[in-house]
Amino acid sequence: MAKKYVYFFGNGKAEGSADMRELLGGKGANIAEMTNLGIPVPAGFTITTEACNYFMKNNETYPPGLEAEVKDHLKKLEDAMGRKFSDSEDPLLVSVRSGAPASMPGMMDTVLNLGLNENAIEGLIKRTNNPRFAYDSYRRFIQMYGHVVLSINPGLFDEKLWGKKEQLGVKQDNAIGVDDLKQLIAEYKSIVKRETGAPFPELPEEQLWGAISAVFKSWNNKRAISYRRLHNIPEHWGTGVNVQAMVFGNMGDDCATGVAFTRDPATGEKRFFGEYLPNAQGEDVVAGIRTPLPISEEERKKGTRAGQKTDASLELRMPEAYKELVDIYQKLERHYKDMQDIEFTIQESKLWMLQTRNGKRTGRAAIRIAIDMVEEGLIDEKEAITRVDPDQLEQLLHPMLDPGVDQKPLAKGLPASPGAACGRAAFTVDEALRITGSGEKVVLVRVETSPEDIDGMKAAEAILTARGGMTSHAAVVARGMGKCCVVGCTDLHIDTASGTFKLGSERFEVGSYLTLDGTSGGVYAGKLPLVDPVLDEYYHRFMKWVDKHRKLRVRANADTPADAKKAREFGAEGIGLARTEHMFFKEDRIPVVREMILASNKEERLAALNKILPMQREDFVGVFEAMNGLPVTVRLLDPPLHEFLPKSEKEIAAVAKQMDRPVEEVRNTVESLHEFNPMLGHRGCRLGVTYPEIYEMQARAILEGACDARSAGVDVMPEIMIPLVGTKAELAIMREMIERVAEVILKDRGMEIPYLIGTMIEVPRAAVCADQIAEVADFFSFGTNDLTQMAYGYSRDDSGKFLNAYIEEGILPKDPFETLDADGVGELVRIAVEKGRKVNKMLKLGICGEHGGDPESVHFCSRVGLDYVSCSPFRVPVARLAAARAALLKSDSPELEISRSA
Amino acid sequence: MAKKYVYFFGNGKAEGSADMRELLGGKGANIAEMTNLGIPVPAGFTITTEACNYFMKNNETYPPGLEAEVKDHLKKLEDAMGRKFSDSEDPLLVSVRSGAPASMPGMMDTVLNLGLNENAIEGLIKRTNNPRFAYDSYRRFIQMYGHVVLSINPGLFDEKLWGKKEQLGVKQDNAIGVDDLKQLIAEYKSIVKRETGAPFPELPEEQLWGAISAVFKSWNNKRAISYRRLHNIPEHWGTGVNVQAMVFGNMGDDCATGVAFTRDPATGEKRFFGEYLPNAQGEDVVAGIRTPLPISEEERKKGTRAGQKTDASLELRMPEAYKELVDIYQKLERHYKDMQDIEFTIQESKLWMLQTRNGKRTGRAAIRIAIDMVEEGLIDEKEAITRVDPDQLEQLLHPMLDPGVDQKPLAKGLPASPGAACGRAAFTVDEALRITGSGEKVVLVRVETSPEDIDGMKAAEAILTARGGMTSHAAVVARGMGKCCVVGCTDLHIDTASGTFKLGSERFEVGSYLTLDGTSGGVYAGKLPLVDPVLDEYYHRFMKWVDKHRKLRVRANADTPADAKKAREFGAEGIGLARTEHMFFKEDRIPVVREMILASNKEERLAALNKILPMQREDFVGVFEAMNGLPVTVRLLDPPLHEFLPKSEKEIAAVAKQMDRPVEEVRNTVESLHEFNPMLGHRGCRLGVTYPEIYEMQARAILEGACDARSAGVDVMPEIMIPLVGTKAELAIMREMIERVAEVILKDRGMEIPYLIGTMIEVPRAAVCADQIAEVADFFSFGTNDLTQMAYGYSRDDSGKFLNAYIEEGILPKDPFETLDADGVGELVRIAVEKGRKVNKMLKLGICGEHGGDPESVHFCSRVGLDYVSCSPFRVPVARLAAARAALLKSDSPELEISRSA
Repeated sequence: MAKKYVYFFGNGKAEGSADMRELLGGKGANIAEMTNLGIPVPAGFTITTEACNYFMKNNETYPPGLEAEVKDHLKKLEDAMGRKFSDSEDPLLVSVRSGAPASMPGMMDTVLNLGLNENAIEGLIKRTNNPRFAYDSYRRFIQMYGHVVLSINPGLFDEKLWGKKEQLGVKQDNAIGVDDLKQLIAEYKSIVKRETGAPFPELPEEQLWGAISAVFKSWNNKRAISYRRLHNIPEHWGTGVNVQAMVFGNMGDDCATGVAFTRDPATGEKRFFGEYLPNAQGEDVVAGIRTPLPISEEERKKGTRAGQKTDASLELRMPEAYKELVDIYQKLERHYKDMQDIEFTIQESKLWMLQTRNGKRTGRAAIRIAIDMVEEGLIDEKEAITRVDPDQLEQLLHPMLDPGVDQKPLAKGLPASPGAACGRAAFTVDEALRITGSGEKVVLVRVETSPEDIDGMKAAEAILTARGGMTSHAAVVARGMGKCCVVGCTDLHIDTASGTFKLGSERFEVGSYLTLDGTSGGVYAGKLPLVDPVLDEYYHRFMKWVDKHRKLRVRANADTPADAKKAREFGAEGIGLARTEHMFFKEDRIPVVREMILASNKEERLAALNKILPMQREDFVGVFEAMNGLPVTVRLLDPPLHEFLPKSEKEIAAVAKQMDRPVEEVRNTVESLHEFNPMLGHRGCRLGVTYPEIYEMQARAILEGACDARSAGVDVMPEIMIPLVGTKAELAIMREMIERVAEVILKDRGMEIPYLIGTMIEVPRAAVCADQIAEVADFFSFGTNDLTQMAYGYSRDDSGKFLNAYIEEGILPKDPFETLDADGVGELVRIAVEKGRKVNKMLKLGICGEHGGDPESVHFCSRVGLDYVSCSPFRVPVARLAAARAALLKSDSPELEISRSA
Repeated sequence: MAKKYVYFFGNGKAEGSADMRELLGGKGANIAEMTNLGIPVPAGFTITTEACNYFMKNNETYPPGLEAEVKDHLKKLEDAMGRKFSDSEDPLLVSVRSGAPASMPGMMDTVLNLGLNENAIEGLIKRTNNPRFAYDSYRRFIQMYGHVVLSINPGLFDEKLWGKKEQLGVKQDNAIGVDDLKQLIAEYKSIVKRETGAPFPELPEEQLWGAISAVFKSWNNKRAISYRRLHNIPEHWGTGVNVQAMVFGNMGDDCATGVAFTRDPATGEKRFFGEYLPNAQGEDVVAGIRTPLPISEEERKKGTRAGQKTDASLELRMPEAYKELVDIYQKLERHYKDMQDIEFTIQESKLWMLQTRNGKRTGRAAIRIAIDMVEEGLIDEKEAITRVDPDQLEQLLHPMLDPGVDQKPLAKGLPASPGAACGRAAFTVDEALRITGSGEKVVLVRVETSPEDIDGMKAAEAILTARGGMTSHAAVVARGMGKCCVVGCTDLHIDTASGTFKLGSERFEVGSYLTLDGTSGGVYAGKLPLVDPVLDEYYHRFMKWVDKHRKLRVRANADTPADAKKAREFGAEGIGLARTEHMFFKEDRIPVVREMILASNKEERLAALNKILPMQREDFVGVFEAMNGLPVTVRLLDPPLHEFLPKSEKEIAAVAKQMDRPVEEVRNTVESLHEFNPMLGHRGCRLGVTYPEIYEMQARAILEGACDARSAGVDVMPEIMIPLVGTKAELAIMREMIERVAEVILKDRGMEIPYLIGTMIEVPRAAVCADQIAEVADFFSFGTNDLTQMAYGYSRDDSGKFLNAYIEEGILPKDPFETLDADGVGELVRIAVEKGRKVNKMLKLGICGEHGGDPESVHFCSRVGLDYVSCSPFRVPVARLAAARAALLKSDSPELEISRSA
């Protein structure tokens, strides 16, 4: 028997099914599934991916028998729809679409209204009673076919169209009348003749074969090949071709078209929710030219979203079609066990379903729907957890732009820290404090931020920077504060001299109101309405399930007692990273820190350190108290010392005056500490080795703080973390020093406080030498920010110059500072985990880079076997959910891989 | 039978032998070996490492039977030497030394003259007839024993000594007379009493047990533990203790002491060569207070090294002892099959051998000795190759400081590029050119160099910088030019304003003469005499053997036809790295390069690139011609574009004027290209991706150049190398582009030129993702400079601030920029080799980092299976030798590991 290359669907039965995705492509398999459910779907057929493969391997010829098979199926399709190609009374028109096993941009998309010709146009006019619509469809069909199938430069058609509109003095396409459309059609056809040397195909069968061959060929076009190469999609998959009858919702008053959600996508409430337009095409609903009407009576009575009452629900106007639609949506929800987003058309009172898919929803709705569906017995708790995307959860934790507002952003940047906020623009910390002092809200607008801006960032509602990436200073600090932040906004130009800034082409004064959306990266002029976050009972119930199912622990990165409390409220189970340097920048400390740095000998340095000691100790006591009973990982000083010193001549002079030192001396120190590549410079444990007294003071502060807290009845679990270790010897020397300090303190106090000493793994060498390092480490905490910088050789401060281009060109699937690069950086993590655990079974493993709060990265951490992730307090719930989802997927990691490459 | 803990040697027989190193320690095993050869060695015994282990494990008690065994052996020793402890006529004195299986600093070294007490001192005076010597020995013994065995602060003794000298108004120890020495001895003893609560031990047996126990304990002192931890020496090895009779060369005219080499250590000539002093101690020969006399008559007739004739050779003065010494040295050379450095003492006409070891020699001597010994049948060719250290070979290739000159350097820096040179100091390129213009030689003295200094570096004989490490710009460029260079000279302070500089505390004017030794890092004032390199017939013969036995190919890093020719002369088998950017800095090109960078759009950029194209093409034709028949790897543009732009306001203004552009515009470009961490910035293939037209021009220049060269009859083998690749996609895109360019050019020319496209592996991610990258690479070239920077997170420009401290504290065994870090960076290389070869069997593997010319690193490259190493032309012979040695050792790599940790 000859191979079967064509699969039919229609009249309530399909030859294919959902599990034939490889043969029929994703789209073909889905249509078949809907048809088999008894849902009324316009009939059609799918040509298999095998046919495509044959075509490509055999010099672009069709497999034997395909032509006859298509002819047979065309006949079946005409019978099923009761219409014929080229019929001047009631013509069959079809759509032709590609459909590969994985979704794949770059291939031929869709040709609509195939079958239109001089006969069929007559029929279409008769059936729709709308000559303008019919001629416009014909014009569009020729242009689309000409471009997609015949490879004609679409600009040639557009020129004619623009010329016509100019001639008529109109702006909209729909202002062109029938006669002008006819003339355009003639012109389009002569373009086709000129460009291809042949007339536009009149026969629908010829049109169809042209489209089929174009779909096949599009599998090998350049964009599709690049996409496959970058996403590891096999060449041999091929694409299917879907040929489906067109139906029309604009043939008269017994016609309609609409879209609906099976539950409320904003709140998750269980009610049928949608809009329709009588006597209209699908585009009309979307285009917003006519105002859509509510589907149900219930909704009509409540009023539409815009608040207007109307008197024409589908339920009232077409009760039978409505009843069928309700039956269908319930069936679809039961079948797919999820809220559906459906599209339908009613043609002459007959309901046709055009599409069903899982509906997009807000985070709030996602949680409510998941919980309701568990109660309805549709899904179980585990499934419920997979139904809420961690990013959706994030929405619940921050204010959002009111979804009702429909305004375009003036500029876009990177969505560095989610939530929305508005305030008056300030360029400096002083300005920011002045504005908040007068009781108004502020948005800090800067080229980039530095540690000296901390007070301004604290005062601000939101931060906007022109430079920097997802792990720039502004981004990291803002996320830590749970504050809205947009960074790397290249359309922002600040002119401090004139006190103005430009967003794109618009200029604003300092003090103007801005609204930022840190979730999308949008920057808006003025004060837009926001909605506050709601953590309702659904949320709390859902998070209980989440915690029940996850295995990874979730800690927070927090530097202060206030942050620690916040983190605990969000469910953090410890602190994974307390950065001591952030404490150094406080206004009352920075002078002493500078004293320490400017010290000309060890004695002076020790004297300054002795002043810092009690302050640091107090910090730690506070953090230990907040985290009573939970572990706290404190990282010793990491940044290079020059970060604490002024940079400009003016600042140097100010600091010299404040410190009562010669300007020359301060400048010399600043110059001698200058580094060409500070990221790879004198920082981390290199400071600990060359200035042991600094680390010694910090170890003392931590351990004395732990003793003080213990004396106050707090259950302390300090973990001391050495940054930037690259060799075993570094950690061994630091460990010896800390143990020596600890022994003295604990003996003095007569206390036994168990503490751990471990290291960041953030230098690639440390990852590959992890077996050596693990011999002297109680824990590893992967510092994946720096590890990413060094593994790729990307400075996070500079990579903006090429990173966007890399992501746009598909060289990088995602920003590696946002989502951990599993293949490269992840491989280093995996090597370190394997080598570390091999020599030290008790080794505790965590991650404290910004990736700890990124869901996909949390999945990676779970796969690779870490014990915990640590992230900024506001990301803790997100990480908890991601951890639970990872635990549920763990036995099935290939699925994760596929979902990523799809 | 009880365990044997003590091994005797003496009277021509030893219980131990050379292969008992683990039990007896290195020193004990060697003395035993000498004794067994029938060489007269002062008798003694070795206490085993097992005894030490017992002692440590058993709460510092001796193993049962040890005390009796030592007592027995002491008796044997007294018999063998015919002397007794505490004898007031002829006392036995012994030395006590530690000796572990591996050489290990930090442990107890030596106690000499043990056995001295109130009786023995009388005997010593009688025997030496030299009361001053005897009392001084006693004083030294008490101080040494007090410090090393009794742990008394040696400063306490020194204070007394200084006090005495002050009181006497003398400066030298040897100006203190007998009575004062007696008084000092009494004071020393009372210090011991006060500090230990017990009198200084009078009984030699008690002294001996104190010393034995001190040696055992020193195994666990802090420095020794740290050393073992850093060098992976097992704790359980323990140390042996060597107790050996003292002999004296200062007992009268029938006594003498001397040192000798069995061949001439400067030239390798086969003749006995040495110095002695009659009636003297060993220290006297070394201390240089008395002028040593020649050993042989032959030598006496030639005159000593200092040119003075003398009439008292040992041969003449003590013919019998001399004859015995000649027999012994010949026996030792035959036994050890290598030139020996021997120490001897003649006591009352009896010859005693104190030490023999392989003698140090110059490179020239090493080669000559190796070749002569092959001819003498002592060793074979393979062994000969292992006898010449690659670093010794280096000496032959450059001018050296005249070894006869005995001057201390004023300052020291890192020995960045070997050889010695002198010239007048110049601070700037202009000054340098002015000086060379007037026919004088110049040394370029700078804080650091940048690509703009190239012309000055070319003009200079040598380069001296205050900053930078072994792979700084100055170091790399100087090595490429084979020019003497000292970098990171922290004692150099340049004051451009006054036109002076300081070396340590001495100030010099610009134009002063300096002499640099790039082999040692020494910087000298004035014009010291140099000796020119000699590549004699021995060298050429030796290098033939070397090439016969090596497997690794050796290429050179060379950017110009002149360098390429030089490289070929030194035996390079291809070019492993031609850096196109060095060509960009030429005076006639930099304006066009700047035009390209300042271009405001792609058209302008293309116009500038079109001007560069013919220049680059000419460069490549020249290089291809020089390397006719050998492969040439060309790396496309690597540095960030801002490296080609001016930095200071003044330079910016100059460039703006030269280019006829507004200063503002040039400044804006400079600012917009500024990077915080240029090492991790917009460079390498990131430029190729964002400005494909640059790489396209370069690919065109290479391939057109190859065609031109081929037309001229040259056999071309171009290899195009993409720098800084981190992902497969980057290389795939670049490869596609180059192949497109190549197809057009080769079709145009109607030529078929095989070419390769490959990548640097210099980003850690590339190493761990090498399997992916190898799918689109013909070759990998490990860029271990950048790989080291990124694997460790050390900026080579900044690491000077801590790297020296790291090496001094033993955190790093060596500068990882000089010798490849096998554990970390090497592991990344190993991973990449393994993963790369797995998917691409034909993958060609090489290294082009500075490590390619470092012998230890060449060994690593051989172990890991690379095909070739590439280094600067002047290092090629060194790399060839290292490669041969590696091939000979390859089957035996553990040995290499041990020799490294020893």
